[in-house]
Amino acid sequence: MNVWSQLSAAQQKALLARPAQQDQSALQARVQTIIDTVKENGDKALLDFNQQFDNNQSEQLIVPQNEIDNSPALLSTELKTAIEIAFNNITKFHQAQLPVTKTIETQPGVCCELRYQPIQAVGIYVPGGTAPLPSSVLMQGTLAKLSGAKTIVLATPVKGDMAINPAILYAAKLCGVTTLIKSGGAGVIAAMAFGTDSVPKVNKIFGPGNSYVTMAKQLVAQQATGVAIDMPAGPSEVLVIADEGANPTFVAADLLSQAEHGEDSQVVLVSNCETLINETKREIDAQLSTLSRKAIAQKALLNSPFILVDSIESAIKVSNQYGPEHLIVQTRNAADIVDKFYNVGSMFVGDYTPESAGDYASGTNHVLPTYGYSQVYSALNLMDFFRTYTVQTISQSGLAQLANSILPLAEAEGLDAHANAVSIRLQEAKL
Amino acid sequence: MNVWSQLSAAQQKALLARPAQQDQSALQARVQTIIDTVKENGDKALLDFNQQFDNNQSEQLIVPQNEIDNSPALLSTELKTAIEIAFNNITKFHQAQLPVTKTIETQPGVCCELRYQPIQAVGIYVPGGTAPLPSSVLMQGTLAKLSGAKTIVLATPVKGDMAINPAILYAAKLCGVTTLIKSGGAGVIAAMAFGTDSVPKVNKIFGPGNSYVTMAKQLVAQQATGVAIDMPAGPSEVLVIADEGANPTFVAADLLSQAEHGEDSQVVLVSNCETLINETKREIDAQLSTLSRKAIAQKALLNSPFILVDSIESAIKVSNQYGPEHLIVQTRNAADIVDKFYNVGSMFVGDYTPESAGDYASGTNHVLPTYGYSQVYSALNLMDFFRTYTVQTISQSGLAQLANSILPLAEAEGLDAHANAVSIRLQEAKL
Repeated sequence: MNVWSQLSAAQQKALLARPAQQDQSALQARVQTIIDTVKENGDKALLDFNQQFDNNQSEQLIVPQNEIDNSPALLSTELKTAIEIAFNNITKFHQAQLPVTKTIETQPGVCCELRYQPIQAVGIYVPGGTAPLPSSVLMQGTLAKLSGAKTIVLATPVKGDMAINPAILYAAKLCGVTTLIKSGGAGVIAAMAFGTDSVPKVNKIFGPGNSYVTMAKQLVAQQATGVAIDMPAGPSEVLVIADEGANPTFVAADLLSQAEHGEDSQVVLVSNCETLINETKREIDAQLSTLSRKAIAQKALLNSPFILVDSIESAIKVSNQYGPEHLIVQTRNAADIVDKFYNVGSMFVGDYTPESAGDYASGTNHVLPTYGYSQVYSALNLMDFFRTYTVQTISQSGLAQLANSILPLAEAEGLDAHANAVSIRLQEAKL
Repeated sequence: MNVWSQLSAAQQKALLARPAQQDQSALQARVQTIIDTVKENGDKALLDFNQQFDNNQSEQLIVPQNEIDNSPALLSTELKTAIEIAFNNITKFHQAQLPVTKTIETQPGVCCELRYQPIQAVGIYVPGGTAPLPSSVLMQGTLAKLSGAKTIVLATPVKGDMAINPAILYAAKLCGVTTLIKSGGAGVIAAMAFGTDSVPKVNKIFGPGNSYVTMAKQLVAQQATGVAIDMPAGPSEVLVIADEGANPTFVAADLLSQAEHGEDSQVVLVSNCETLINETKREIDAQLSTLSRKAIAQKALLNSPFILVDSIESAIKVSNQYGPEHLIVQTRNAADIVDKFYNVGSMFVGDYTPESAGDYASGTNHVLPTYGYSQVYSALNLMDFFRTYTVQTISQSGLAQLANSILPLAEAEGLDAHANAVSIRLQEAKL
């Protein structure tokens, strides 16, 4: 246990520091080679990488539409319903974010509009691994569907000769995925950025992945014209604030649900109650023993500070300084202090609001800024699937009035032709 | 003149291709050295770079507040008014974009909010050069002020022993700039990203610049925790669509007002009328002779295609394929076809709506995606100065209902502790 008030500012900063990221230059060179190979050999390169990295010998890159359409029959009723509830709640929450054109007449005769365009073609990456991740499809695909994107590409790897899990297929079906690619890693990121015979070129690539995928996203965002990415990736993290009235069983369960994500996950407990901290530790030990991912969670807990503060006010300051991806507030006054937090990805208020609700089903997005990026990046939201542009229409008299601003500024900036474009028009205007 | 219908698809694509960007690896190494020097030596490095790059020997990095406060007295009434009109219109247009919290009850007892936080500390870069750029201060600073950012840093270089131009100072005053740094280039970008004794660390860096500045922004966005940048930069460009009724004098003036920006500017004229194209060329020659930046504009025009199309419908397709930063539509049916355009940064509709109105004073932003990025990046808007996060509060019965989605999904994804965090709570819930 770390007693916050006994630490110097430098010690406090060190306690909240994320683990340093590795030197990326060797990784960058390897990933660049993969990208260049896909640019040169297209689909053939993807098939080669499928063999090499996933022992997948299949010649089939694109999942046929009938496999997607038939997926519901392969699911248990329970899992099918679970996917539908999540899809409906995510839709409700994000539908409220649909933008509308804003029209402002800034001066008489000067009509300015802010308009929104769905990004035409989006790519969504969903990692493979030991278990399928239908929630990852839903958290991105639902937004793509709502935006009205014309092309929704989903890429996910399969191991050996496995089929894509029907939960993934059904989530893809609900989200209106237009192309589903069986391929993973940096190669398929390059394929979506530059296009191949089978893979449509997209304008923006979303989704989590390993270090190869993350590096590939960064590189193609710099190298492919008109391609953007969602946000920088980092290990997942949670900060829990709990007071003396909190239930240590709940607190322990929340810390473990973050710790089981990966060995590099960070979990932080901040409390004004030493007893709560000690009881939570005992509860963690008790709950750990039943978890299938016990070893992963244990490793993650090694990096994870438990901090004793003087007051909940002090806990708020710790959270704002750390900037957690997930913040869970289990204090008696939780509802009253919500407005005091900033630099947070997603906040869970009260004893009965576990992070796993937001991870799956409440409707909020689980794609969130982590690793300190909550100071500046947003939780994934519907605007990430739109772009804004402006439209203006000016009348002759509107332009004559505006000339009082344009002409002196153009002169000050030494841009004659900018001034000419106005004065030539005013010579012709019927005012 | 290029006749669009006589070109193959490949020739059309080549005609609309932007000039290739140079290999960036040598530049990257040079800029990284500058960044590392600033990280190590702080203010001292900035002063050294001021000497080295700008022949500025002054020991003063930060402009005293009284210089900013006294700036109006140094301006002509005309220029002061011009700045104020622009500031007021930019404020009006962007104020309408102020976000409000959205609260959605996705299921009974499941309350989800989307909230907005101003980015706390922002940095704005304004290039130096032969003339001051007060418009660049206004187009970024007004938004920072509207957002409620606590720290607004403005950085701009000065040559030799010059003072900062009073038009820049006055624009900074109107925008509530909190720190004004006299320093330019990659060094000051690094200073804003990492912080020095004099320069506050910021969370997001905005603004145009030369290739060093652009590279520095890219590198710090990858290397500094919690630092983002506005958008990728590229040469400025305009596409003008004009029909037989357009005024070739206006069209020529608009093309030249883009061409004078820089030798790498691109201007494209698309028309369904050969006579209009020929008359515009003659008008360009006539207007060119009077411009102080004639040599720059002439060079830019060498890269710039004039395209004859069969119809305005075809012109719309050319524009959507090119994706122009600025689009000017001078056709008789301009108002009717606005909705048919996409992939555009800012659109100017009708004969009396020159680009220079939006560059300076109408209220729309002049920081726009270029070089094909209008497929995916937005015109600078107020949301670029905010981040979004979510807050949720779930009741005991709300969680019990949501469990029907969370538990099967957690099981499918093999995440036991995610399920535990719900089921442990439901054991205690009073339902």
